Amino acid sequence: MHVYLDGEFIDRARASISIDDRGFLFGDAVYEALRARHGRLFEAGAHMQRLRFGMRELRIARPGVTDEILEAAAKLIEMNALADAPDVLVYAHVSRGSAPRRHAFPAAGTRPTVYVAVGTFAPKTELCAAGAAAITHPDLRWERCDLKTTNLLPNVMANQAASEAGAYEAILLRGGLVTEGTHCNVFGVVNGIVRTHPLTHRVLPGITRDVVIGLAREHGFVVREDALREDELRSADEIFLTGTTTDVMPMVRLDGVPVGDGVPGRVATTLRDALEERMGRRLGAPAERAGSR
Amino acid sequence: MHVYLDGEFIDRARASISIDDRGFLFGDAVYEALRARHGRLFEAGAHMQRLRFGMRELRIARPGVTDEILEAAAKLIEMNALADAPDVLVYAHVSRGSAPRRHAFPAAGTRPTVYVAVGTFAPKTELCAAGAAAITHPDLRWERCDLKTTNLLPNVMANQAASEAGAYEAILLRGGLVTEGTHCNVFGVVNGIVRTHPLTHRVLPGITRDVVIGLAREHGFVVREDALREDELRSADEIFLTGTTTDVMPMVRLDGVPVGDGVPGRVATTLRDALEERMGRRLGAPAERAGSR
Repeated sequence: MHVYLDGEFIDRARASISIDDRGFLFGDAVYEALRARHGRLFEAGAHMQRLRFGMRELRIARPGVTDEILEAAAKLIEMNALADAPDVLVYAHVSRGSAPRRHAFPAAGTRPTVYVAVGTFAPKTELCAAGAAAITHPDLRWERCDLKTTNLLPNVMANQAASEAGAYEAILLRGGLVTEGTHCNVFGVVNGIVRTHPLTHRVLPGITRDVVIGLAREHGFVVREDALREDELRSADEIFLTGTTTDVMPMVRLDGVPVGDGVPGRVATTLRDALEERMGRRLGAPAERAGSR
Repeated sequence: MHVYLDGEFIDRARASISIDDRGFLFGDAVYEALRARHGRLFEAGAHMQRLRFGMRELRIARPGVTDEILEAAAKLIEMNALADAPDVLVYAHVSRGSAPRRHAFPAAGTRPTVYVAVGTFAPKTELCAAGAAAITHPDLRWERCDLKTTNLLPNVMANQAASEAGAYEAILLRGGLVTEGTHCNVFGVVNGIVRTHPLTHRVLPGITRDVVIGLAREHGFVVREDALREDELRSADEIFLTGTTTDVMPMVRLDGVPVGDGVPGRVATTLRDALEERMGRRLGAPAERAGSR
C-alpha cells in the first residue's frame, strides 16, 4: 500500500515522520477523513473547506494544499488498485512541519507536513440497521472543538470508555447539554422535532451532520439546531449519530437503558436510507470526482 | 547528535516515527523535559513520578519506563559529549505506540513508543535578572491540565500570541482566575502573600513550582495555594513564572502595564537565587545522578 508524504508517493512501511514534527510534539495539525466509493470522493469540497478553515484559524500556511490532497487521494486510489472498491476511506493530515521544539510557531518558511493515506473501509451497515449502544461521558475537551485537530486525547479516553462498556460511542455532556460524540455528531428526536447542537466552538461542523440536516428537511422533518439537555436526551424518542465513518447510526440503548422503543426509529431509518441514496448519487457526480477540476 | 528511540541509540537525522504512531495521530502521549548540569539531572525522581502518574491516568503501560528513560538520558549525555556541559535539556516522550487508526486503545501488546533526546540549553539568565513581559490570554485548554500530554495546541496558540506581542509568556485566565502559563506556573505576590493556583485538574503540577514553594517557605515567605483573581493579578506587587526551562522569571510588564514598580521584586529575586543555589546543590547530590540506582 502506498501513501503520500511530503510530496512523494511511498510504500506505507517506509512512511515515517521526523521526531521534530510538530504534529508529534504538540498535536499541531489538522486532518480530514473522507469516504470514496468506486474511486469517487463524497463531499470533497466541504471537507477541503473545513480543512482550510482549520488551517486559517491555526495559521498553518500551505498554498494549494487542498488541490494537493485531492490529487494525491485520486492517485493513491489508482496506485493502490482501489478505483473499483465500493468503500474507501481517505485520511489527510497537515501538520505545521518539523522544527526545533518550542511552543510558538517555527521560523517562517517551515514547510507543513502533508500526509494522505487510503484504505478499504467497511461501512457499519449492521450497526446502522440494528442500532447500537451509547454511553454518556463528560465532555473534557478544549474550547475550540470546531477545529478538526489532532489534539484528540479526550476523544480517545471517552471512546475507550464506550468501548469498554460495549457501546459504539460516548455521547459527551457539558454543562448539562449534549455537545457531540467522540467522532460524530449527535441528534435526538424530542416532541417530534429533530435536534442537534448548533455550530459553535463546542462542536465540530460535521459534513455528514450538514448533509443529514438537509435531508431531514427535504423529508419534511422539523430540525432545530438547539442543544439537547441531558434530561431530553434520556427521554428522547430517538437518538442517532452522524459522521463520515458512522453514516446515520441509531442509538437504541443509552447507558444501558432502551432509547424510545429500543429499536431504530422512523427518523433515523429514513435518514439512513436517504444518506445512502445521496452518497450513491453524489459520488456519481463528475464534479465530486477526486482531483478533477 | 544521537537520540534514543524504541530501544535504540540512533543518529538524530535517522530518527523518525511511524505515521501510525498514536502520538502523531491523536496526541496520545505524555512527555517530560528535565534539566541536567554537568551530566546530573535535576529532580529526576519528581519528573519520573509525574510521568508515571500521566501514564497511569491515560493507561499507557510500559513497565520500567522511568528507569529506561533515566538510563537512556545518562547514556545520551555521555554519547553526545555533554557530561561536562553546564546546562543540558533532556526531552522524554512516551506515546501509546503505533497501530491502525481508531480512537479507542489499540490491541493489547501494542508497544508504546519511547523517545529521549538531549541537547545543550541556554538558561534565560538575562530575562530572569531583568524581568520579562507577559500578556493575558483566555485559557482554552481541556479539563485535564494536570496531565503533561502532547495535546498542546491551545498552549501553542497562546504562546504564539505572547511572542507576537513581544512577551515571554501568556498568563492564562479561566473564569476570572489565573491558572498558569503556556509552559510554566504563575505566582503573584498580593498583600505580602505569595499565591499560586492550587493543584487541581486546571494546572500542571510543576516540579519547579513545588521546589519554589518549598524555597519560599524556607525563606520565611507566606505561600497560599489559592488562585489569583484577574484583578489581583493586575494589581499584584510581583508576578513571576516558574518552570524547568523558565527557572524563576519575574514578569515586569503585564499587557503593557508595569507590574509593581516595573522591576523584579524582592520575592522573585530571592527565589531565583535560591533556586539557582538549589539546582547547583541538588545536581551535585549522587542520588540525583542520571541513571544511578
